Parts: sequence; C-alpha cells; structure tokens
Amino acid sequence: MEQKRVIQVKQNILAKNDAAADEFRAQRKEEGTFFVDLMASPGAGKTTLLLALIEKLRQRGFEKLGVIEADLESDVDALKIKAAGVPSVELNTRGVCHVEMGMVNRAFDAFCGQRFDFLFLENIGNLVCPAEFDTGAHLRFMLLSVPEGYDKVYKYPPMFAAVSALVVSKADYLPLNPDFDMEALKSQARLINPDIEIFVVSARTGEGMDELADWFMAKRAELM
Amino acid sequence: MEQKRVIQVKQNILAKNDAAADEFRAQRKEEGTFFVDLMASPGAGKTTLLLALIEKLRQRGFEKLGVIEADLESDVDALKIKAAGVPSVELNTRGVCHVEMGMVNRAFDAFCGQRFDFLFLENIGNLVCPAEFDTGAHLRFMLLSVPEGYDKVYKYPPMFAAVSALVVSKADYLPLNPDFDMEALKSQARLINPDIEIFVVSARTGEGMDELADWFMAKRAELM
Repeated sequence: MEQKRVIQVKQNILAKNDAAADEFRAQRKEEGTFFVDLMASPGAGKTTLLLALIEKLRQRGFEKLGVIEADLESDVDALKIKAAGVPSVELNTRGVCHVEMGMVNRAFDAFCGQRFDFLFLENIGNLVCPAEFDTGAHLRFMLLSVPEGYDKVYKYPPMFAAVSALVVSKADYLPLNPDFDMEALKSQARLINPDIEIFVVSARTGEGMDELADWFMAKRAELM
Repeated sequence: MEQKRVIQVKQNILAKNDAAADEFRAQRKEEGTFFVDLMASPGAGKTTLLLALIEKLRQRGFEKLGVIEADLESDVDALKIKAAGVPSVELNTRGVCHVEMGMVNRAFDAFCGQRFDFLFLENIGNLVCPAEFDTGAHLRFMLLSVPEGYDKVYKYPPMFAAVSALVVSKADYLPLNPDFDMEALKSQARLINPDIEIFVVSARTGEGMDELADWFMAKRAELM
C-alpha cells in the first residue's frame, strides 16, 4: 500500500517534469539555443571534455557558449569553466542525485536572457538517477572513461538507453588497459540502444575531438 | 504541498529502513557475521579490490567469506566472485540507485543460513544515493580511484561523511596523474569526517593491501 503510494507520487513528479522539459526545449529551440546534457560517473572527465569541446566549437565559429554546472555541492567545476572565459552557472542540488526541471529553469534564469549557440548541462556525476529525469535538453550524451572498465552497459542499462552518443573518454589510458574490450562495449551498447553513436576520444591528447565537434555541429543543424 | 508529501513519504521510508538495519546488524553480530558495505563510483575497482582483500583475509586465517553483489542489472560481478570460489549472491535492484534493507534481507536469505567471518556488500556504483540508506552493515567504506581525480570530497560530501574509511584505489595510476593532490584529498576528507581512516592501495600491484587487511581484522575484533 505504502509502496504503491510512493510509486504514484514518483509518477506524478516525472509527468510534471516531462511537461516542463518539453516546454523548456521548445522555448530554447525558438530562440536558437541548442541545449546539450552531459552525463557520466564521477571522475569520468566531464569538465575536461567540455573545455576541450568548447575549444573545438570556437574554432568552428561558435562564439556563444555556456555551461550549467550541476553538483551536489561546491563550485569546483564552475570555477574551472569560468576560468576558460565561458559563462557558467553553478547548480547545487544540495544532495539530490539528479537534475530536474525546476533546477534547470532557475539555473537558466541566472543567465539573465543570454542566448547560446551551445548551452551544456554538466549533470551530476552519477550513472543511475540522471537518466530518469528529462532535463529539457535537445541532445543527451554520456562519457565512459577507459579506467572505469568496459563492462558497464549491462550494469547501467537505463543510462546507455537514454543517450544519443557514448563518448569513450581518456583513450590515452588504453595502452595501460589491455583488458578494455572496446568491441564488446560497442556491441553491448548497440544492443541496448541500436542508434547510439560511439566516439573514442582523449581530451588530454586531442584524439577524436574533431570528429566529436563535427558531430555536435551536425546534430545542431539537424535538430534546431 | 506535493513537495511536502514527498518528503514525508521519504522520511517514513528511511525510518523504517533504519529500524530494519539495526535489527539486521544485531542479528549478524549475535551469530558472528561481520557485515561490511563497500561503496564507490562505477569503475572504481570494487570487485577487483574485494578479490584482493579476500585473498589477504584468507592468508590471515579467515575462511568463511561471502559477498552480496548489488547491481542495477546483470551478474557480471557475481560471476567474477564465484569464479574465485567465494559464495556470492547477486542482488539486482532493477534500476533502483541504492540498496535498502528489504533487498539486503532477501539477498542474505539466499545464503540459506550460512555464517561468515566477513560478509561484504558490493553496493551499487554510485557516490550519491547509497550513502543515504543504512544497509545494516557494521562497517562502511568507500573507494576513490586515482583516475577519478582527487577533487571529489566537496562534490559528494554525504558519501565521505558516511564511511569509516576512504580507500584510494588504483594507486598504480599515480605516476600518470601528477595533478592528483593526495594531501588535499586527505585534508578535505578529514574536514568532512575527522575520524576517517585513509588507505592508499593498488589491488593490481598489492601496494597497501596488507595494511588494509590488518585494519579490517582489527575493526572486526573491535566491533564484534
């Protein structure tokens, strides 16, 4: 009985969140702001990848770039982004394990009407909960870093199902991880999500970053 | 109003869970089973560390060792543990981001009355939600692997506050990560949790594993 009430409350929350996400997505599309949600484990290299990607997008002529930095607490990542000269808003969830639309709206309002070619959301470091909550993004992608190991698809299937692209990050660690079975990872990810795009990159060495930036340009053109 | 109802439901769930955890903890203590909960990000090396730790505990004369392997889905880790000749029960949370007592009780029942010198719970790969739910363990510890980066305390404070020990794993990666500020990590962790024990280990090379096994022996003697 109590279990049932909890599930009902959760469904209400998700339905409200979905409606708010659709509204946010439509508004951003209208004003030309392409909103991209990045999800990964703690320490997969989200901030470092965003900084490298932003550099590549600048080289391609996109000047209006912004980041919403979500964390349970702290402004460590937001400060890194700001240091790179990119407008950034810090979204502290105060212990909540995912980002929902009330938070996204408040964070976006803090940009005071700015418009972006690309606005990124660096979601909470978590391979579980963020997948469940629509953040109003036009595109969602995830990182899996090489040191985490390749055997993550069957352990965290909702995340792999929720994204348009899987970016295998920290590829410079591959020589140290002879057991990392890239082909198994790819085939398992495609079993869960047949349309998933897969990139192998290193933000540190730059490997794969041009292909990734080109893909984001193409998706922006397609979806906006 | 709705927000308030959700919080109320959550408090009821946590209170019930806490009571069930206390009961489980007392029962296991009575029968001499020391129950240890291991938490970390996906890919921090939980299963590999458990296998190395179990080997060290066997060398110290502990023969009755078991593992509850929690995952959203899949039996990848449970199979690795079983391959090492360790009794293991697979606990699939079906998408839930943490382990709660109903699950622990069902998993424990699947051992059909076995008693253990050390019974480990490999919790869901997640630095957020598991910290909130008491699992009935006598001792909780966490891994933070070197490739994840040292700047995690201020991002995930509830986890660092919830554990008796922080084990910095994959120490063999330290030479590749000159930016990993071990002293900052230690002082930040101790600011959140003054009593936290900190170990630096590599399950791959064996570095630090004897000290860690000795500490678990001592904690067992102290708490049981």
